[in-house]
This record gives sequence, C-alpha cells and structure tokens, in this order.
Amino acid sequence: MTDDSRILIKGGKVVNEDFSEMADVYIEDGVISAVGLNLQVPAGTRVIDATHRLVLPGGIDTHTHMELSFMGTTAVDDFNTGTRAAVAGGTTMILDFVIPQKGCSLLEAYEQWRRTADPKVCCDYSLHVAVTWWDDTVKKEMETLVREKGVNSFKMFMAYKEVFMLRDDELYAAFSQCKEIGAIAQVHAENGDLIAEGAKRMLSLGISGPEGHEMCRPEEVEAEATQRAVTIAHSANCPLYVVHVMSKSAAKVVANARRNGRVVFGEPIAAGLGTDGTNYWHKDWAHAAKFVMGPPLRPDPSTPGYLMDLLANDDLSVTGTDNCTFSICQKALGKDDFTKIPNGVNGVEDRMSVIWEKGVHSGKMDENRFVAVTSSNAAKIFNLYPKKGRIAKGSDADLVIWDPKATRVISAKTHHQAVDYNIFEGMLCHGLPVVTISRGKVVYESGQLFAEQGHGRFIPRKPFAEFVYKRINQRERVGKPSPVSREPFAGKVISLTSK
Amino acid sequence: MTDDSRILIKGGKVVNEDFSEMADVYIEDGVISAVGLNLQVPAGTRVIDATHRLVLPGGIDTHTHMELSFMGTTAVDDFNTGTRAAVAGGTTMILDFVIPQKGCSLLEAYEQWRRTADPKVCCDYSLHVAVTWWDDTVKKEMETLVREKGVNSFKMFMAYKEVFMLRDDELYAAFSQCKEIGAIAQVHAENGDLIAEGAKRMLSLGISGPEGHEMCRPEEVEAEATQRAVTIAHSANCPLYVVHVMSKSAAKVVANARRNGRVVFGEPIAAGLGTDGTNYWHKDWAHAAKFVMGPPLRPDPSTPGYLMDLLANDDLSVTGTDNCTFSICQKALGKDDFTKIPNGVNGVEDRMSVIWEKGVHSGKMDENRFVAVTSSNAAKIFNLYPKKGRIAKGSDADLVIWDPKATRVISAKTHHQAVDYNIFEGMLCHGLPVVTISRGKVVYESGQLFAEQGHGRFIPRKPFAEFVYKRINQRERVGKPSPVSREPFAGKVISLTSK
Amino acid sequence: MTDDSRILIKGGKVVNEDFSEMADVYIEDGVISAVGLNLQVPAGTRVIDATHRLVLPGGIDTHTHMELSFMGTTAVDDFNTGTRAAVAGGTTMILDFVIPQKGCSLLEAYEQWRRTADPKVCCDYSLHVAVTWWDDTVKKEMETLVREKGVNSFKMFMAYKEVFMLRDDELYAAFSQCKEIGAIAQVHAENGDLIAEGAKRMLSLGISGPEGHEMCRPEEVEAEATQRAVTIAHSANCPLYVVHVMSKSAAKVVANARRNGRVVFGEPIAAGLGTDGTNYWHKDWAHAAKFVMGPPLRPDPSTPGYLMDLLANDDLSVTGTDNCTFSICQKALGKDDFTKIPNGVNGVEDRMSVIWEKGVHSGKMDENRFVAVTSSNAAKIFNLYPKKGRIAKGSDADLVIWDPKATRVISAKTHHQAVDYNIFEGMLCHGLPVVTISRGKVVYESGQLFAEQGHGRFIPRKPFAEFVYKRINQRERVGKPSPVSREPFAGKVISLTSK
Amino acid sequence: MTDDSRILIKGGKVVNEDFSEMADVYIEDGVISAVGLNLQVPAGTRVIDATHRLVLPGGIDTHTHMELSFMGTTAVDDFNTGTRAAVAGGTTMILDFVIPQKGCSLLEAYEQWRRTADPKVCCDYSLHVAVTWWDDTVKKEMETLVREKGVNSFKMFMAYKEVFMLRDDELYAAFSQCKEIGAIAQVHAENGDLIAEGAKRMLSLGISGPEGHEMCRPEEVEAEATQRAVTIAHSANCPLYVVHVMSKSAAKVVANARRNGRVVFGEPIAAGLGTDGTNYWHKDWAHAAKFVMGPPLRPDPSTPGYLMDLLANDDLSVTGTDNCTFSICQKALGKDDFTKIPNGVNGVEDRMSVIWEKGVHSGKMDENRFVAVTSSNAAKIFNLYPKKGRIAKGSDADLVIWDPKATRVISAKTHHQAVDYNIFEGMLCHGLPVVTISRGKVVYESGQLFAEQGHGRFIPRKPFAEFVYKRINQRERVGKPSPVSREPFAGKVISLTSK
Repeated sequence: MTDDSRILIKGGKVVNEDFSEMADVYIEDGVISAVGLNLQVPAGTRVIDATHRLVLPGGIDTHTHMELSFMGTTAVDDFNTGTRAAVAGGTTMILDFVIPQKGCSLLEAYEQWRRTADPKVCCDYSLHVAVTWWDDTVKKEMETLVREKGVNSFKMFMAYKEVFMLRDDELYAAFSQCKEIGAIAQVHAENGDLIAEGAKRMLSLGISGPEGHEMCRPEEVEAEATQRAVTIAHSANCPLYVVHVMSKSAAKVVANARRNGRVVFGEPIAAGLGTDGTNYWHKDWAHAAKFVMGPPLRPDPSTPGYLMDLLANDDLSVTGTDNCTFSICQKALGKDDFTKIPNGVNGVEDRMSVIWEKGVHSGKMDENRFVAVTSSNAAKIFNLYPKKGRIAKGSDADLVIWDPKATRVISAKTHHQAVDYNIFEGMLCHGLPVVTISRGKVVYESGQLFAEQGHGRFIPRKPFAEFVYKRINQRERVGKPSPVSREPFAGKVISLTSK
Repeated sequence: MTDDSRILIKGGKVVNEDFSEMADVYIEDGVISAVGLNLQVPAGTRVIDATHRLVLPGGIDTHTHMELSFMGTTAVDDFNTGTRAAVAGGTTMILDFVIPQKGCSLLEAYEQWRRTADPKVCCDYSLHVAVTWWDDTVKKEMETLVREKGVNSFKMFMAYKEVFMLRDDELYAAFSQCKEIGAIAQVHAENGDLIAEGAKRMLSLGISGPEGHEMCRPEEVEAEATQRAVTIAHSANCPLYVVHVMSKSAAKVVANARRNGRVVFGEPIAAGLGTDGTNYWHKDWAHAAKFVMGPPLRPDPSTPGYLMDLLANDDLSVTGTDNCTFSICQKALGKDDFTKIPNGVNGVEDRMSVIWEKGVHSGKMDENRFVAVTSSNAAKIFNLYPKKGRIAKGSDADLVIWDPKATRVISAKTHHQAVDYNIFEGMLCHGLPVVTISRGKVVYESGQLFAEQGHGRFIPRKPFAEFVYKRINQRERVGKPSPVSREPFAGKVISLTSK
Repeated sequence: MTDDSRILIKGGKVVNEDFSEMADVYIEDGVISAVGLNLQVPAGTRVIDATHRLVLPGGIDTHTHMELSFMGTTAVDDFNTGTRAAVAGGTTMILDFVIPQKGCSLLEAYEQWRRTADPKVCCDYSLHVAVTWWDDTVKKEMETLVREKGVNSFKMFMAYKEVFMLRDDELYAAFSQCKEIGAIAQVHAENGDLIAEGAKRMLSLGISGPEGHEMCRPEEVEAEATQRAVTIAHSANCPLYVVHVMSKSAAKVVANARRNGRVVFGEPIAAGLGTDGTNYWHKDWAHAAKFVMGPPLRPDPSTPGYLMDLLANDDLSVTGTDNCTFSICQKALGKDDFTKIPNGVNGVEDRMSVIWEKGVHSGKMDENRFVAVTSSNAAKIFNLYPKKGRIAKGSDADLVIWDPKATRVISAKTHHQAVDYNIFEGMLCHGLPVVTISRGKVVYESGQLFAEQGHGRFIPRKPFAEFVYKRINQRERVGKPSPVSREPFAGKVISLTSK
Repeated sequence: MTDDSRILIKGGKVVNEDFSEMADVYIEDGVISAVGLNLQVPAGTRVIDATHRLVLPGGIDTHTHMELSFMGTTAVDDFNTGTRAAVAGGTTMILDFVIPQKGCSLLEAYEQWRRTADPKVCCDYSLHVAVTWWDDTVKKEMETLVREKGVNSFKMFMAYKEVFMLRDDELYAAFSQCKEIGAIAQVHAENGDLIAEGAKRMLSLGISGPEGHEMCRPEEVEAEATQRAVTIAHSANCPLYVVHVMSKSAAKVVANARRNGRVVFGEPIAAGLGTDGTNYWHKDWAHAAKFVMGPPLRPDPSTPGYLMDLLANDDLSVTGTDNCTFSICQKALGKDDFTKIPNGVNGVEDRMSVIWEKGVHSGKMDENRFVAVTSSNAAKIFNLYPKKGRIAKGSDADLVIWDPKATRVISAKTHHQAVDYNIFEGMLCHGLPVVTISRGKVVYESGQLFAEQGHGRFIPRKPFAEFVYKRINQRERVGKPSPVSREPFAGKVISLTSK
C-alpha cells in the first residue's frame, strides 16, 4: 500500500448514478475533497492518470459470509482473504452477516463477529444481524443493536427448518419490530417445510447428487416464500429486502410488488447473474457441487439474462454475492448426500466484472446504472449515502478506476480468494478495475494488492434510512385506517349457544 | 309434488355444456331414458311444455353449510329449508361440509352429519369432509371415508388460527394423503396468522364494525395463501380445489397456475359474483353485517365482473355459495366487535339466477358455459358425471326448465330460505327456473314447492375422478425425477468440525 | 377400402371432449347410429375389435394449403396425397384456404378451388376464403359465399405487404362485414411493414440464409399484429380466429384477450407444438430451409411446451398444420436469399401423433382435451358440431381407433405425404391411429390405406355458429352504447377562425 | 421581479433526485455557484429564508401547446400567460411542440414558432418538432433541426388520420432517422383508423356529447398503438418516448417494455394523474367538455392512482401537461358534435402541486422521486442535465422553494392561466411553491408574479443524450445480427413456374 494521504485522479470520467462527467478527483485524508476540472492541489500530491478510464464509487457487496461456520465446516475465505479479494475486484465495502444460533444472544454473536472481523478487514465493512428465533429478549436485543451498535438491517430465514426458520407469526413480529426501530427486514425466501419434504423425497428416489439440491427446492418454492414475505411485510408496513433473488418467478414477485407500490428491494447476486443451475447436472460431481448454494441457481438458462433485465430496470435494486466459499474437499462432505454439501459460492472478487460484462457490455444497462446497482443503491438502502456510493466532495474516498476496454478471463488460477475453484471459471470479461482506493489509500493497483489487515473499519449505520423510510412513515401518517361512524345496532341479539 | 313417475318435457331446447339442441326429454323412474325428437312414450306420461324454454341439468351447489354451528350459534337454514330453497332456485344437488372439531374423529363427524341431513334433504346431496387437525388417525380416517363412505374431497383451512388452521407441513401431509387415496384437496385460502394480527390491529385502532372484517384480511392475504396452496399441492402432485375465490388477485393466482399447467380449480360463489364488499362500509350496521363472511367480499367494485370474466373463460371452474345463513339477531352477536359476527351469507336459492344475470344476460358467457359452471364441471370434478351434470340418456333426472326471458327481483320477502334478509335484495334477474325436477319428480313448479323432506339421497362419490386424476396420474408415470449418473467422487474429503 | 356399410366398433373406450366411457359404436350408412353397450346390430355387420383402444372423433385439420401455388412454385401435396396422408394420421377432415389474387373475384377463386379439390379428396373438407383486397365487390362476394357457398370463415393477412396485406381500416371493414354476415374473421397476424423492413435489413447485413427468415420477423412482430387484430375485432364486435399462433408472446396476447372476455380463438399448429426455430440456425442449408414458414418457428426452445400448456388450458383452442409442402428442390429457390424460399411445412399426417405425444403422453392434457383440440372445438367454431367432432348418435361416422400404448418414429421414409422430408423426422410418438373411418368407410387400417379419390365431400357450413356468435349477439343486444341525456349548451360559442 | 443578481437561499433542505440534505444555495449571475453549509457570500447578497422548506430544481413541463391553433381556434394561453402560470406553479422550463401542417416545411414551422415564443416567454423553453408527413425533404430537415437548431426530439402521430397520422412504414422511417441523428422519437399513440371508425359509429348511434369522445377511442385503442410503437421502435433500435400515457393498459405496455429491456419512456400528464374520465359523463355539457383531450381521460376511476404507482416506480419516467387551453366558448364549437370540441386541458400551473398531492402526500413517492419525475428525468432524456434538473454547483439557477406543509385549493378564480376554468377545480393540495427562481431571478414570490416577457431563453439541446443513447449505441455495437456460416446448397433447384 502506498502511504500517500493525498491523491489526485486526473483525466478520468467520473461516473455517478445520475450522470458521468469528465472531472478530476482530489482525495485528502481518506475523504474526497474536490471533484472538478483544474483543481488546485498541494505540491507532492500523488497523481494517478485515469485518461480513457472511468472513476467509479467503490463497489459495495451487500451479502457476504466470511469464515462462516456452517454445516459442520468453515468457509475458507476469512475477513482478510475475503476483503483482499474484494478490493482486487473493485469492491471497497462488504456487508457480512452475524448469525446467532437458535436461542443465543444476538448481541453476543454481534460482538464476537466484530472481534473476528475488525482486525482482519482490508476495507470497510458493516454487519447485518440474523434473527433466528423469537421472544422478547430477541426483540429487545434488536433495539439495542440499532441504538448502540450501528445495525439497521436484520435477516429472517423462511428456510432451514428447525435451524433458523421463523414461522409466519414470528416473521410478522420481527418485521413489526424492524418497522418500530427503523431497520429494514431482510428475508431468505424459500419455503422451509417444502424443502424438507422435497429433500426427503429426492433421497428416497435415489437422487443424492447435487441435482437433487435444486430438484428438492424448485423455483416456485422460492417464489411462494417471496410472495408471502411481501404480504407479511406489507401487513406490518415494514420495508423489505429480499436477499439472493435467484429465479425468474421470485424476481417477478419482487418486481410486481414494487409496481404495486410495496417498499421492497430485491438483491440478485453475482452467481445468479453470471451462471446457472444447469451446472448441477454436470457429469463431474465436484463441478456440480461447487455451485451448491441456497436458494439454488436455476436450470432455466434464460434466468441470468432475465435477472439482469430486471436489475437494469430497477425492478431489482442492488447486488451482493452470498460469498461463502467452501473448497472441494469441504463440498465433498456431501458426496453421497446433497443435503450435506456445504452451501456457498464465491463472488466477492468477481461481482463487479460479471455485472459489467453481462450488464453493461451487453448493452442492458449503462455505466450509471452499473454504479447504482453495485454501490449507490446499497448505500442508500443501508443509510450510508452519500458517504459511500457517490463520488462527491465530502464522500469517503472509496473508489475504483475502471478500464472499460480491458479484458480478463476469470480463473481460480489467478483470483485472490482462498477457495480452490471459481464458479465463473473461463468467463471473458470486458471491463476491469485497474486501481482500487479504500479510505483514501491505494489498496490495489496494476494487479498488485497493497491492502493491509485492519485497514478497514466497521461502519455503523443509523436507522430510518430516508431512502427506505420516507414513504413508510408518510403512509403511516396518512394511511391509518379509520372506522365507519354509525348508530349503534339497536335490534335484538340472540343468546350464544352454550357449547 | 306430483306423483308421476314418467314425464315428457316437450318443445324445449336442451342445453348441455357442449351444445344446445331442440329436443324432448323423457324421464322414467328418476332417470332420463331418452333425449331426442319424436320420442315414443307410454300413454299417461305427464307432458310438460317447454316451448321457448331451456332444459338445463339441475344446478349443483358445490359449497353449503346447512344448519352449521359456528361462532356460538347455528345457521338458520337447515337441510330442509336449505334444499327447498335450492330447488326453488333450480339447484338439485348440494355438497355440504362435515367439519369435525380439532382432535375429533372425522368418521364420527361424518356419521353425525349423515344422520342430520338424510331425513331432511329435498334433493340429492353429498359431503366434503374438513381436515382440521393432523395425525395418523386422521390420515387413516381419510382413507376409510374414501373407501367406505363415498367421500372424495377434503377441505383444509389455512385460516381460523388455533381453531381449524393447518400449518404448511400439515397441509403437505394432508395433500399427499389426498393424492394417495384419489381425493381432491380443497383449501380455504387465507393466511390465518395475518388475519389474527390484523384483527388485533383493527380493534386496537377502534375499528369494531363490519368494515374491520375486511380491513383485517385484505385480498392480498387471500392471494398469498392461494399461491402457497398451489405451490404445496404441486409439490405433492395433488389436485387442488380453492373454495370461495373472493378477490381478483386470488383469482389471478388460480388462473395463472392453470395456465402454467397446475391441476387446480377455483370456485367463486354467488355472493362474490353478485355483490361486493363496499357493503361493509354501509352506514347501517345491520346492512353491513349481513355480508360478513370469510374470506370477505372485496371493496373493489370491479371484482364481481372480473370473477365472472374468469369464470366465463374457464380460469375459474365451478360455482358454490358458501350458503351459511345467520339472521340479523345472530349477526348482532358481533355488534360491538366484528370478530364475533357469525360468518356467512345466503346464496343457495339465488346462485343460478345471479350467474345467469351477471354472466349470460350480460353476454359474458353463453348458456352452455352456464351449464358447465353451475353443474357439469362440479359433476366432473367430484366424479358424478355424467349421472349428474348432463342431460343424456342414463343420467339422473335432475333438471330445470329455465325461462331465459322471464325476470324477477330478488327479495327476502319472496325467497324460500329461512334467513330474514337477502344479500341480493333488489337485484333484477333475467332468467329464472319455472320447473325443477329432482330424481324424476317435479319439486318446484310455477312458484310452488312440491319438495318433500327426505326425498333426496346421499350420493357417494368414487375416488380418482378421471377429470381430475388423468393428468395427475400420467405425470406421476412420466415425470418421476431421475438422478444424474456419475462416477463417485474420488477426491479428498475434509473432516467435520466438531461443534 | 372395404365396402361394408355397417360397422360395429367393439370393446373400445369412446372418448368425447367431456368424458370417456366404455361403449361400442355402431355405424350405418356413413352415420353413427348407436353408441352404448350391448348394441343390437344386423347380421353381417363388420365388427372391429377396439379392446384396449380408444375410439376418437376423427381429427379436423383447420389449416391446410394443398397444391397451393405460392412464391413461384406449387406445393407437392395435392388434395389426393394430402388427404391420404391425413387419414393415415387419424384426420378425417381438412379446412383448406381459397386465396384469390389481389383484385380477383373471391367467388371465382372459390369455384376453381372446388373444381380442383372435389374430385381428389379422400376425406371430407371445407374451405376458408381469403380476403386479399378490399372494395364493395369483395364485400358483396363475402355475403354470397356465406349465403350460397357454405363458407363461414374469411382470412385476412396483416403480412405479405403489397401482395395480400390489408391496412387497419380495411381490416376493420372486413371484420365488420364478417360480423354482419355471421362469419368468423381469421387473421395471419404479423406486421407486414416491419417484415419488409426487416428483410431488407437482414439482406443488407449479408444474412441470406434461413436464419434471416426468423430474424427479419421476430416474435414481437407477430405479437404486435395479434394485439392489433384483437383490438380491431373488438371494435367491430367481431369474433376473431388467429391462425398459426407461433410464439409465446403472441399466444399470451390471445390468452389475455380471452381472459378479458374477447371472443377470440388461437390456433397453434403441429409444427409449432412439435419443433422449434433453432433449426433455422442448422449448419446444413437444406435442413434449415425445410422449416421455413410464416410466421416462423421461434428459436426460444421453451416455445412448444408453452404453446402446449396454453392449448391444454383452453387459452388456445384448436390445432391445424398450415400444411403446405415444398420439396427440397423447391425450397432451393431461395438458396441465396431466404426471402425466396417457398414458405411451408408438413403436418397434416402427423398432427394427431405430435399432439398426443407432447400433450397427452407428457401429462399436459388428457384424452378428452385431446379430442377437443384436435376435433371438437374446430367443429364448434366452424359450425359443424355435433355432426363432426363428436361420437354420438346421428353424428357423421368420421372416427379413429387409437392405440395409446403403441409407438412409432416419424420419418419421411414411411410417411404418406408427397414431400421428401419431414420436419418431425426421428420423433418418437406414443399413441397412433390403427383404424381410420371416414364417412362410415374404413380408409386406413393396420398401416394400409384404403382411401379413394373423391370419397370425401365438400361440407358447407352455416353462418352464425352458436359457439361463436351467442355471446357476440347478446353483447350487441345489451351492450349498445347510449348517450348521456343533457340540457343543450346555452352559452356563448366562439366563431371559427378562418384558416 | 427583483433585480438582485446574487441570492442566498438559507436554511432549507436541498432536494435532488438522489438525496436530500440541509444546505444553503448561493446563486450568482443566473447560475448556482455553491451548495453547502456556511457559505461565504458577498455583502449585499439577497438572502431568502427557506427554513422548514424544500429547495427543489424548478419543474420542467415536457409537453405544452401554448397558443396552438387547432380545430379552427387558438389556445388562449400564449407563451406569456402560459409561462407566467408555469412559474407561479414552480415550473421553470417548458417544452412546447412545433406542429407543421402536412406538406409544410419543418424548418419554417420551427422558425415561426421561435419568432412567436422568444419575445414572450417568462422562463426557459425548448421545442419538440412534429413529423406530420414523410418524404426525403422531411428527413433532411430533421437532420438540420438537430445539427443547427437545438432540437433532439420529434413527435409522430399515430392518430389524427388524414391530418397528422403516419402509417407504420413511415413511422419506421422516421424512427430510423431519429436513431441516425441521435434524436428521441416521440409518439402520440392511438390507432387513428379505429378512432375514425369509432367516431362515425358513435355519431350514428346518436351519441354526440363529450362521452362520445371517450367511447369512440377506448383505452385499448391507445394500448394497441403503444404496443405497436414499442415494436417499431425496437425494430429500428430507436429510443421511444410515449407522450401523454393516459390509461392503465397503455401504461402497462410501457412498463412491460421497459422490464423487457426496451429503451422507452412514458409521460403521464397532470390531468391523467389528477382527475379522470368520469367527467365526460357529467350532466352539464360545459363541465364535461372541459376535459376533452386526446387521448381521453379514462372512466376507470382507479386510473390516476395506477398511473401514479407506475410513475413512482419508474415504469413511467416524466410528467408533462399537454397544456392546451380552450375556453368554454371555444369548447362550445362542439356542442352538437364531440368531434368538433377543441382538444386540450390546462395543467402547466398545477402540475407540481397535483403530483405532490397525489404522489408525495399520499406516500406513493418521496420528495426525491418527485424531483426526478417533475424535473431531473426530463432534463436527462432531453439532454439538459445537469444544467437543468439538479441543484448543484454550475447548474442553472432554476429552482423553487417549496412548502410541504402549506395547502391551497386549486381554482380558476385564483389561477394564473388565461383559461376560464380549471379541470382540478376544488382539489385540496398539500405542498406549494412559495418562491420560484428562473435564471437566477425571483419570478414568483408569496403569491406575486415578477416574471417579465422575454426573460426566458430558448434552450438548444444536443443530440445523442447519454441517458438515452448509451444503451442504444452499445447494443448497436454488440448486438449486430450475424449470419450462420454454411456450405452452399449443392442440390437440385426447381425452375420457377411462369405465372
């Protein structure tokens, strides 16, 4: 890492979500202090030439699981290798998940996760917290997390029956509490009961390979739960965020809900945008197992293009990765039973490139929409904007210089993640990061990493994000139901039958 | 009632679901023994002139609750008055529901219901049985009911939390059992958890009138459950029948599921086709309370027309009434709290007229489709066709002579039901029954009832109705999932973390 | 051909659109004279054993072009070979098209087509007439054709600019005339202007092969015209029939229009249900060229399954083939320019098998729906029911004994058509005809043809088919627009600007 | 008007489309020279207190027809009164239409319109040009207008048969030219043929009042044309802008096209968002006539809410008014024949308030989305951003200080337009402009107008707006169709039939 505290990025095209302009960017002490042409800068300022390149807000990966212990083993990318990979790919902030065990304290789980992550992260990060069970102590801890710990998003599982799954009345209670305290409710939307039945059925039919993983939870199981979550959230007038939207039908549920006025956001992930579930039918077990995640990728090959169309059109809002990497020898825990394959894929490094390739290079979205879906919208939803997600005076100096003409081929041989394969192996990508700057420091340049452990900071987030809550609050004000005013009923009333 | 055992209906136009033809109908011993022109009949045969009139298969009301004890009181129309009203309206068969209490035997409830109904019914009837709880004894009783008791349809509730409601895994189990034994799964599709929360909320906001009944369970609560039921049924490859489809959005779920190949049938009811939920906002409490039923009628005034469009287009399949009549003094149990208003409306008498008026007279459907949706489709789904639901040699002599030009105005003053109001009060209907024949006897003619208690019979129904199960069974045969054949994974496998 | 005038089909399962029953069928003098068990038949009656087999109404192919001269050459299947192939496949009636040249008399074209077909047909047939230009003489000839010539359907082209295409105002006029005289308006729905532009563009880009045929007229060009036709027909309150619905988007337009209450029928064809447009990208020019027809097959491989789903669900109504066969050496006229490839495919022989395989064997529809979509619905729409399309006393003895378990592989080597290839080559079909009976004669049995030229008859059709016109006429009666009654405006009126 | 050239707006909340912030705005010489807190400003700067108020980019009305001569009379609001009303309502720029007569020069019409408007406008304006006929001179003039005259948008009519209407092949040509020269194609989307037929029909049925105006062109006539325009534009890879989207079905066409990736923008107008077509059935002729415009407002009362939902969700993009005001005595030209009622409504003054009331106050959109749909998106589409449509350093000082708590009731008695009624008469609006600044001058304050004729400027616009063309151009690059490479066909080719 260079130690310059002053950087001038010169000659580039600054791309924000609303428009692009030829402008230089001057960074001082970790913050953008000027954007414009002909900037006056102190002598000795490091100058980076960005001619013919784009200067983008650093990517925000809304969904990672670094070093998660899950299904009896631990994800190989930890907060260090994971965030190193992130910055190598142009991402300068991740949002990871704290997932307490059923019955355990959310606060303690949060603190433990902070202790794990803080010393390791090479870029800024923040934390969502999962609500995996429900009682009044959980409800109170949610409030504490919001008031004191910088958390404004909670994830509820509709899947993982008997492990993390909440029932509808618990979802309603959790959503209501989110609304009360100004957080956004996130859901993993799959019908856990049907998955449990489906898995039993597939195994009983002798289907034990990775294809069984998808067959036991086809996309309608995801779409159903998504519709249910939307309905429950609307009942509670709570904003909703659907993590990892993986199928056309679930995405359509989100899109239609938005058209219908619901405050709901859908998050497709790099895996779902860049590859598909036909891989589960691959003849090589190890190949097929790499792609196992929940909800699964879909065998309909038109899925990625459809999700990208919806992302381009703001039917879907932001992109994460669900990065949770298990090496082949870990995946092999499920070699005889797909229900034992640790769920998770890579993505934190390649998300930006995959979306550029499939979204921008293809002509489905322009560079401004790219910024919106990889960074600005996440910043808005999670109440970080415009400190994050925008290149403007006063914003954090998290940015990436992007060469839209350069190409690379994604490969596990060259990637920076710890995992021993890459689900995008062989994909040619136009557009790649040439310099990544985190908190005003160059952390990646010309293929070299200069990121240091602990360089990143935990970023607390305030509740009642305006982007999310303005409409919610206004509806609360003007939409309160009111009774019909009537004369009391004056007629005869029958006696109740004793029963 | 006349005592003729031979009747010749002369000069009418016989209307079946596939076409209409000028033909006479000769009835002998309760059965249609000939249809055609210039029929030879024995001397002394009673001749009924049907010139300029239509001869239709008698209506089948798929959904009634005669003399049901519910919410602390008992519906005022019993199997006698209820079926008298039915035949006065052109309906010659009803399907009523046996609803055992949670924890009680289905078989005993069935037997008790038979004992109640058999001596009273003025026309044929059959019974659906509700599955209101789940364990292995319920599962076994379902099989006994199918094998020995002539039941091939079971209703499961997704609403009425803590009373009748089943959870998703119980629904899956019940649906799977239906599929195993060749029954059709029926659902009351509303999200019971959300209704419970909604009701609490409305009362807490001071909304205690009938409008609160709708506001606590708006149509998306119905649409959500409908989508969920469709998904669960498909997982179990079980045919599904959605009772009382009350809203545009729920109807669209059914319609889209059918378009997508699901074996699902939607049943709108007379109330939903003929009136709407704006009545809950009526300034007169008693007026508003009359319309209270679950799921509620919808305040969107375009709902009835939309449901009729879908019924005309075979997106919805059959029509019932959910006839469950409580008089004003009974409704008044909920005068201070809408949750205590006994749920139910009339309809068994007026269903045929309402559908003719809103469906046929309006030009939305023709007389043949009218027969399909009021009679033939019910007969097919519940495995009674062509004994019921068709005018053909060999079919039961259940039919109605219909005057398409005549008009009447519906009113509680003139109706034959026991209840002291009529939700269709004041509706002008073109098209009305002039003669109704049940089991070969004239039971209604020129405004007079000749129906006798006990004239009707319980009609047992066989499982695996072809109309329902041909596709289900073929899919089972050709659609069985199969595994990918692969070499076993030969690589290293990590050890499980002890946890 | 056998010369028996009496046939008893014994032991089979008679399948009509509404249900199936074990019954024998007795045929006398070309007509079905009894259906039932234990029929009494004269001595000497030929008995055909149908045990384990189905007895179906003979297929009706709604769309053929036998020996059509088109694009400079003539289709090789004439009315003789074409109808021989038809009966070999279980089809006992075809509806062919009279297509007058622009400016030529419809009546003369009709008469000429009758002269051509009458002596050659081996099964019954009828004729649609195309309206390829517009003026008052055309309007009058339409009326004459309806009144005197047994025509009740007219096809209008929205494609083939400057050859057959009508503009919107002409379509409106033609539809209005159809409505007036009780005919059904048929449309070839593609935007001819866009096709013309698209073809120019593809050729200018050096795309001259068969793939250009699809690329110049992608499915949205079909969907657009379909929507336009639906709109124009509704304006004129005229029933509409969309011939050869080839794409998912066009099919969805038809389906949604029906759901919305429009009297519109969609006709997918065997080619569209059994194969797809990926063939246009085949490396072998001749292979690709075989599939060229208009509108083209679609490259989206989920198209056939989707069309079948909609056909199963009555979103689409009937099936034809657009059989218009040009041999490879004829197709080769366009070897350097796809716009010169004669348009047309085979299908008249294989339609029944393809639909059984993809529809019934797959579990998408049952045998009754198969009868509806291959025969009964066509008979209803074109006013032939129940003489055609039903197995019932009094109906024409056009039927087929079908073995649902037998299989065959479709091949040009074994087919009965004159064309030298088969677009379904290699398709394994479950379900095939074992005996075909036309007008009471066995014309095909155990793989042998007994059909004689001229055995078939032209079947005149009456206007105002009830299935089509009941709703149209009722809407005309009750839906007439009416003015608001108002006081006349009494205020000041400005003078018109002279301009 | 004040003559201060320096203004500091203090204490307000600056609202841009992406977020809001507490900030002061300093204006110098017509341009915003700083946005932030604690700004240093020269002594003598006028300070405007905006505490508790919002500071918004001035509204841009995308669609006006000031002093248009149409249907034999001239709109009463000219460029002076029209723009005075605009600024009184918070709008600081209008886009008006040049509409040459069929056969007349576009350039001459443009020049004449400039001569008319330039001396009168009180705020900035720009011009769309209509293409009302087609030949090569039109094509060339379009290019000249783009290159030399600051026009980058052309409107084509699919309605007004024989007056302005273009046929599909002309539309294709015009769209292709737009694409070539970097303009956006605008369409008035209604099927002109069907309108002509519908009008004849209504008059023949004795329907001559304003209700006939809607009945002769129901919404499906609009939806059809919209679908057609989308299809043609996609064929030409041309961006499309649908002016005055008036119905749910047309809006859905636009929304679905966008979801499907089409570069298309829909413009609802104030009238369509704030009122509905039930007014045409009003018993008072004059009342009904006020609302007559084309396409008409729709009688479905759920239309305005639906359009607002889609506008909130970015399914629709911008808002105009189609302001074209004819007084009652002018409307009265059609007192005996609705086809003679001059088409047009007011809106330029009330657009901002109506959208705030129905959109923001209702909770459907937040203040940022309000800015997007009333200003920023228009600026982006028409290539004015960020000079217009954003409050930022360097942008034009066109802005409005908005009091979100204040209310007013719209009325012709108090409005600033010349017309003698207001279609929003009686509407209570929360949110209203307290100060409007145009080009750095206060033109409206505390209910008083300080606008001077000729204060506004014509704003030329460059072609190839990035917001519109980035995707179009990238698709052109990567999406070019390519042929299959094949061996030439070597088989026999038949000879052509001589014909």
